Amino acid sequence: MDDAHRSGCPINLTLEVLGDRWSLIVIRDIMFGSRRHFRELLQNSEERIASNILADRLRRLVDRGLLTRADDPTHKQKAIYSLTEMAIQLVPIFAHMGAWGRRYLPVSEELSIRAELLETGGEKLWEEFMDELRAKHLGKKLPPETPSVLARLTQAYLDLVARKAKSA
Amino acid sequence: MDDAHRSGCPINLTLEVLGDRWSLIVIRDIMFGSRRHFRELLQNSEERIASNILADRLRRLVDRGLLTRADDPTHKQKAIYSLTEMAIQLVPIFAHMGAWGRRYLPVSEELSIRAELLETGGEKLWEEFMDELRAKHLGKKLPPETPSVLARLTQAYLDLVARKAKSA
Repeated sequence: MDDAHRSGCPINLTLEVLGDRWSLIVIRDIMFGSRRHFRELLQNSEERIASNILADRLRRLVDRGLLTRADDPTHKQKAIYSLTEMAIQLVPIFAHMGAWGRRYLPVSEELSIRAELLETGGEKLWEEFMDELRAKHLGKKLPPETPSVLARLTQAYLDLVARKAKSA
Repeated sequence: MDDAHRSGCPINLTLEVLGDRWSLIVIRDIMFGSRRHFRELLQNSEERIASNILADRLRRLVDRGLLTRADDPTHKQKAIYSLTEMAIQLVPIFAHMGAWGRRYLPVSEELSIRAELLETGGEKLWEEFMDELRAKHLGKKLPPETPSVLARLTQAYLDLVARKAKSA
């Protein structure tokens, strides 16, 4: 174990990597929001992440092996960020955090519908979602016509937003 | 939703409550280390938490409903901290964080044996552990002679420490 670590406890080490208020927010937006470029991550941020913090966290997450950064062949001068397997393996932690937040904290209906679906779907759905992320971010092959978990989550969110706009 | 929150997303709100490097460390030590008093939490800290940070986090965790603080009937002038149901519901998150840390980070053998047992035991073991925590911290009744999960985890840790001391 590296002396720079506070201890070799797996929970401590995980918190050393992810235990700040922004790193998991950035991974969440890449994972669930399919935002792959700096500008999208900045402009669509629900939590209004500051540009310098976003730049710092992206750099740190690349250094720590959670993201890779590459030139986007379709956009000159733009970098595209991808999740690594290490980040994809955080899906169950996100699912549990979402479920816990829904139970105990003042969540908004729109922003918690996806967490609700993930919770209800359980481990089977998480595995499907992880396979989909592997296809999207790591170039793994998926069987053709595999139904998209992300599309389902996103549609449920958009339906709810539309329903609320109508009734408002 | 309170305007003081960055957003109503359940993952964001969970990070607002727990997303610093110390809050979950304090809960971990109360949960897995059965440390209930300030001095124990301070002196036995593997990560050498500073006294002012510990005091601040304990206060914050009480304010946020994760811990309760009471006078300890057996120790004059000592407060005893207990987990609430809200904190006990973090067991699956700790289990997943421990599993993730073991897979990707430079954990020490001694400090990861408990995470390994939790991971191997799966959800059934986590439920048993949560019931045990409810008995210990919330005064709920357990069926007599229920085998203790914590005792098993602790024994595995102590056995490993003893084995390593012998072979050193």
